[in-house]
Amino acid sequence: MSLTRIAIINITGYIGAEVARLLCNHLMVKSVSVTGRSEAGKRLGSVMPHLSQIDLTIETTPGDADLIIAALPHKASAEAIIPLVGRGVKVIDLSADFRLKEAGQYQQWYDHTHPAPELLQKAVYGIPELRRTEVAKAQLVANPGCYPTGAILALAPAIKAGLIGRDIIIDSKSGVSGAGRALSLTTHFPEINENVSAYSMAGHRHLPEIVQELQALQPNETLMITFQPHLVPMTRGILSSCYASLLEGKIAISQQGVDELRQVYRDFYEGEAFVKVVDMPPQTKQAWGSNLCLIHPTIDLRTGRLIVVSCIDNLVKGGAGQAIQNMNLMLGLPETMGLEALPVYP
Amino acid sequence: MSLTRIAIINITGYIGAEVARLLCNHLMVKSVSVTGRSEAGKRLGSVMPHLSQIDLTIETTPGDADLIIAALPHKASAEAIIPLVGRGVKVIDLSADFRLKEAGQYQQWYDHTHPAPELLQKAVYGIPELRRTEVAKAQLVANPGCYPTGAILALAPAIKAGLIGRDIIIDSKSGVSGAGRALSLTTHFPEINENVSAYSMAGHRHLPEIVQELQALQPNETLMITFQPHLVPMTRGILSSCYASLLEGKIAISQQGVDELRQVYRDFYEGEAFVKVVDMPPQTKQAWGSNLCLIHPTIDLRTGRLIVVSCIDNLVKGGAGQAIQNMNLMLGLPETMGLEALPVYP
Amino acid sequence: MSLTRIAIINITGYIGAEVARLLCNHLMVKSVSVTGRSEAGKRLGSVMPHLSQIDLTIETTPGDADLIIAALPHKASAEAIIPLVGRGVKVIDLSADFRLKEAGQYQQWYDHTHPAPELLQKAVYGIPELRRTEVAKAQLVANPGCYPTGAILALAPAIKAGLIGRDIIIDSKSGVSGAGRALSLTTHFPEINENVSAYSMAGHRHLPEIVQELQALQPNETLMITFQPHLVPMTRGILSSCYASLLEGKIAISQQGVDELRQVYRDFYEGEAFVKVVDMPPQTKQAWGSNLCLIHPTIDLRTGRLIVVSCIDNLVKGGAGQAIQNMNLMLGLPETMGLEALPVYP
Amino acid sequence: MSLTRIAIINITGYIGAEVARLLCNHLMVKSVSVTGRSEAGKRLGSVMPHLSQIDLTIETTPGDADLIIAALPHKASAEAIIPLVGRGVKVIDLSADFRLKEAGQYQQWYDHTHPAPELLQKAVYGIPELRRTEVAKAQLVANPGCYPTGAILALAPAIKAGLIGRDIIIDSKSGVSGAGRALSLTTHFPEINENVSAYSMAGHRHLPEIVQELQALQPNETLMITFQPHLVPMTRGILSSCYASLLEGKIAISQQGVDELRQVYRDFYEGEAFVKVVDMPPQTKQAWGSNLCLIHPTIDLRTGRLIVVSCIDNLVKGGAGQAIQNMNLMLGLPETMGLEALPVYP
Repeated sequence: MSLTRIAIINITGYIGAEVARLLCNHLMVKSVSVTGRSEAGKRLGSVMPHLSQIDLTIETTPGDADLIIAALPHKASAEAIIPLVGRGVKVIDLSADFRLKEAGQYQQWYDHTHPAPELLQKAVYGIPELRRTEVAKAQLVANPGCYPTGAILALAPAIKAGLIGRDIIIDSKSGVSGAGRALSLTTHFPEINENVSAYSMAGHRHLPEIVQELQALQPNETLMITFQPHLVPMTRGILSSCYASLLEGKIAISQQGVDELRQVYRDFYEGEAFVKVVDMPPQTKQAWGSNLCLIHPTIDLRTGRLIVVSCIDNLVKGGAGQAIQNMNLMLGLPETMGLEALPVYP
Repeated sequence: MSLTRIAIINITGYIGAEVARLLCNHLMVKSVSVTGRSEAGKRLGSVMPHLSQIDLTIETTPGDADLIIAALPHKASAEAIIPLVGRGVKVIDLSADFRLKEAGQYQQWYDHTHPAPELLQKAVYGIPELRRTEVAKAQLVANPGCYPTGAILALAPAIKAGLIGRDIIIDSKSGVSGAGRALSLTTHFPEINENVSAYSMAGHRHLPEIVQELQALQPNETLMITFQPHLVPMTRGILSSCYASLLEGKIAISQQGVDELRQVYRDFYEGEAFVKVVDMPPQTKQAWGSNLCLIHPTIDLRTGRLIVVSCIDNLVKGGAGQAIQNMNLMLGLPETMGLEALPVYP
Repeated sequence: MSLTRIAIINITGYIGAEVARLLCNHLMVKSVSVTGRSEAGKRLGSVMPHLSQIDLTIETTPGDADLIIAALPHKASAEAIIPLVGRGVKVIDLSADFRLKEAGQYQQWYDHTHPAPELLQKAVYGIPELRRTEVAKAQLVANPGCYPTGAILALAPAIKAGLIGRDIIIDSKSGVSGAGRALSLTTHFPEINENVSAYSMAGHRHLPEIVQELQALQPNETLMITFQPHLVPMTRGILSSCYASLLEGKIAISQQGVDELRQVYRDFYEGEAFVKVVDMPPQTKQAWGSNLCLIHPTIDLRTGRLIVVSCIDNLVKGGAGQAIQNMNLMLGLPETMGLEALPVYP
Repeated sequence: MSLTRIAIINITGYIGAEVARLLCNHLMVKSVSVTGRSEAGKRLGSVMPHLSQIDLTIETTPGDADLIIAALPHKASAEAIIPLVGRGVKVIDLSADFRLKEAGQYQQWYDHTHPAPELLQKAVYGIPELRRTEVAKAQLVANPGCYPTGAILALAPAIKAGLIGRDIIIDSKSGVSGAGRALSLTTHFPEINENVSAYSMAGHRHLPEIVQELQALQPNETLMITFQPHLVPMTRGILSSCYASLLEGKIAISQQGVDELRQVYRDFYEGEAFVKVVDMPPQTKQAWGSNLCLIHPTIDLRTGRLIVVSCIDNLVKGGAGQAIQNMNLMLGLPETMGLEALPVYP
């Protein structure tokens, strides 16, 4: 039986490399082409030693493939993808370039005029737990950002069920790989080791995605979302702590209410392979290296507030793993294929 | 000139050891006695090699001293301190045993009946920036917890100025030394390295202190405070991100409002040696090893929400350093003596 | 087709848990029973959340199985295994209890009289690259220690080829998971974070294994091996730097000699799936999470000394992965089955 | 009393910043000028927030000063320093530019022709424990490299006493700050976190210094030194493990011999404030933030080999602290002034 051929654009970043690593154990697809402008012409294994068993040379442009996964920075990604979409190739884009539905937001958040606004409606925001059917039919999937994945999955059940008011605070703590492989003083080891910081306090680019997707679940009222990211000294993982007021009369402010709340979440994610509603506060390590999202909803009984903590591996469920989950849906394969690995502990 | 004699109870924990380290460079006081039940009889340097230049043997009970700093766990601390207070010795207690004014709260939060409720009114909550005069006159100072120090200093100016509503969320990220030197699976290196977690989601013991002290600044309305601590893989440091709604008409939701807000904070902390209101989001490393508290107040202009980020070293301003600051006040010495060291970077 | 049934004794340590994790993706075997005295009766997933998709309850003694993998501490392991061997069950022992051939060494290094010296000759030291045929026929395999695996693989080709003199120094740097899941001050996060130390300077228990296995490759002269382990602040990985003098006339002290040396190593490990002789100094991260051993032999041209650096993941090739490699051989399965995962990067 | 005026060239690297930090608590000197080409014109505190209490603006060239401490990279350092030396200013150079006595070695190791070979004899290699008198009289002090400091102090007593043969192996493990503040993929957090590696296996630039200074203690025989550095995931600290064969008849290969060996070391370092010969294997954390060098000499009784482990903070005794120690000697001040801080633990 022939394997579906996958090309990966920009293998030299963390997300592109992670796509290649995960595909290596996939039974039905095969990486046939990888690109990376700065390292074109080199053997993949010489640039990424952990991938040395993949027998490929890095190219400048992707070779012929059945589906292309692009892991370029925004703007560069759109430029590479637009002609591919025109040719009818299936594409999963890991950049932000097709995530937002309103073209104007690209001006506001990414400082550039979107080059193909008409594709924004065609693209599907690729969070399978919320948009499985659309993903399966899509030609172009916009893979969510790492922060939005954890935040949206944490809040979707409560918003959908109408349990909370419009005021929402998302306080996220991310490992450093989320900032990518490009060098910066912030991510220089002696600077970030033994250090925690808040950043993008005037507004982080992942906010509009979060607002767009959560608002879609609650059309009646304008959500007021504060999203504050933090950098913590670890390589992988995002923990998001989400806070909102429970609306009166919806759920009891009691231990029984907590149980009901968990049931709402369990029902929402019933049958999902990668989302686990857990009874103990989760740790990012419990998702490390896997495509899992662990979610722990609870109630602060003193204040009647909902608190939801979610954990993901930012490079897997927050990036490469979710891309493969989307790819499986787009190719009609079992959704979990290639994503069977358990979290690595310790 | 004779040096004031200090005894340290429980030198074998991180806070007690840090008191000894900091006192070593103090010009006007001298550690004359250190206790530690499990290591009594040993040379201090054999148990704590970094303190080997302090020529003391660990004792079971503190020797004669002008002021005693106790770094015992709660309950054990009260037992050790009550007789000392009875004898008229000046005492700084680093445990929680004299921080709360209502004896009933000890039952609720610490599972024991307070053995000397009458001392709770006598004790002063030792946060010098808010209670300098009281501390200077106190015989018994209850040194604040590490989390409350950063949280209270972050929110006090906004609450005092009446800028915010009653709903307050404090999301704190702490280094592991805050959990102490006692062994636990949670703080075993392979478990917490590459890991972030939320904990005490049903209520952390530092919450009642935070409520007590902030409520005292705003007697008109009952504050509704959610405090959620997190553990991050670093040794020292706490970053607290505080969220609250700005009351309408108090401050403009604009860049000018941000400037005004910062001025409110600068005015509040004018003349303070250890609190710095900063214009850039601070990092815990910028306080590492020092008695500084860095505070960055800002406004989320999209939602009109106040966000304040504060950073401290949990063992210094959040523990031993603040104890020495209180000690200086109680002894009539310059407040910064022994606390001159700059943060260590990188 | 029925799967071979595996039992894991002592699932509650890091090595036992890692065996379970790796077996989960194995196509031909299945974990059917797991034991752990302190947690017996609990669901596996409640004790080890990353294993929660394995549907087993922790038992006191192993259930019926075709092959048993024991991950107990030494002494306890022999006690559990001896009766199993008597019953004819195939066993892989991850403790040291059957690694040494001379019973007297257990007295010297482990402070106890070996309970079944006759089994020491029957047991096979399970390093497949050196003893593949013996492992395949063994009923009892003694899985090597983590340090010995990296050190033996690094030095075997040079010793076998008679390139070096008798004086050998092995300086190893290990991640903290090598010290296990039991609590100790040494492995308490605030103690080992930002810290490197040498330990067991009077002799580490892994030395006799290293001597035994390397000496077997060079019967003519008594090797004089110094093995010095160090602890470094990371969770997984061992890097061993090995030093020895090159014998005169065996290999040129020149860049050409370096090439010849690498060829000696490449020839020695030809066809090995898990040992890679690499041209660049390797990093432990390049083996992280995988069963690889990376080896970089070179010559210090100024002194004519051999330097070999090897890297493994101490819990995989240095423990659980090698156990599965041995299991595959003992069961007649492809040696790499279940061990296909690439290293995790970054 | 007027303070001696110090200028620091290149404040924007880790070593320059550490000099400024330590000088801040020095009672007899004062930083009056700091330079840093890329940040000239900015306030020091805006570039280095931990130094914000130092009221200086970064300059392009150093202002008038009594002594200048240069923390530039090699080559740039010589260019800046040569004219200063010509003008008679006292200079401490933290680069390698004046450490080696033979000009030809700069061609070999640093790829450039030394611009002022005549100054190489005039410069004093600034390791006070070995060259105190020379340092005190020097106009130009070449501050040792971080690796050489730990290695030379570890081996000097044994070599001076003629205890060991010519074959010496130094295996060093360094924190990442030793690689400086300039960005590189190697020191990017996700790359070095959870990673250990050997590097400069063809020869590290610190080797010739080590050879030069140790050879000077043993003129009769050519030492054969292998020096192998490693990078470990921590910010500060170097641990060096040194191996050599004990010459027959010099010292007993027994526990008594170990005691005699330690006494040789204690005698050698008698009266030294910053070198401690310790009976337990030291840890880098026990020197963290201080100017201490901890040394633990022992004998591998199985092989008759000397093993010496030394620990320093690479930025203090391995850089800025040693520079201040040299400065104190050059200025006739007490050698420990400004260096009184104890190690920071944990």
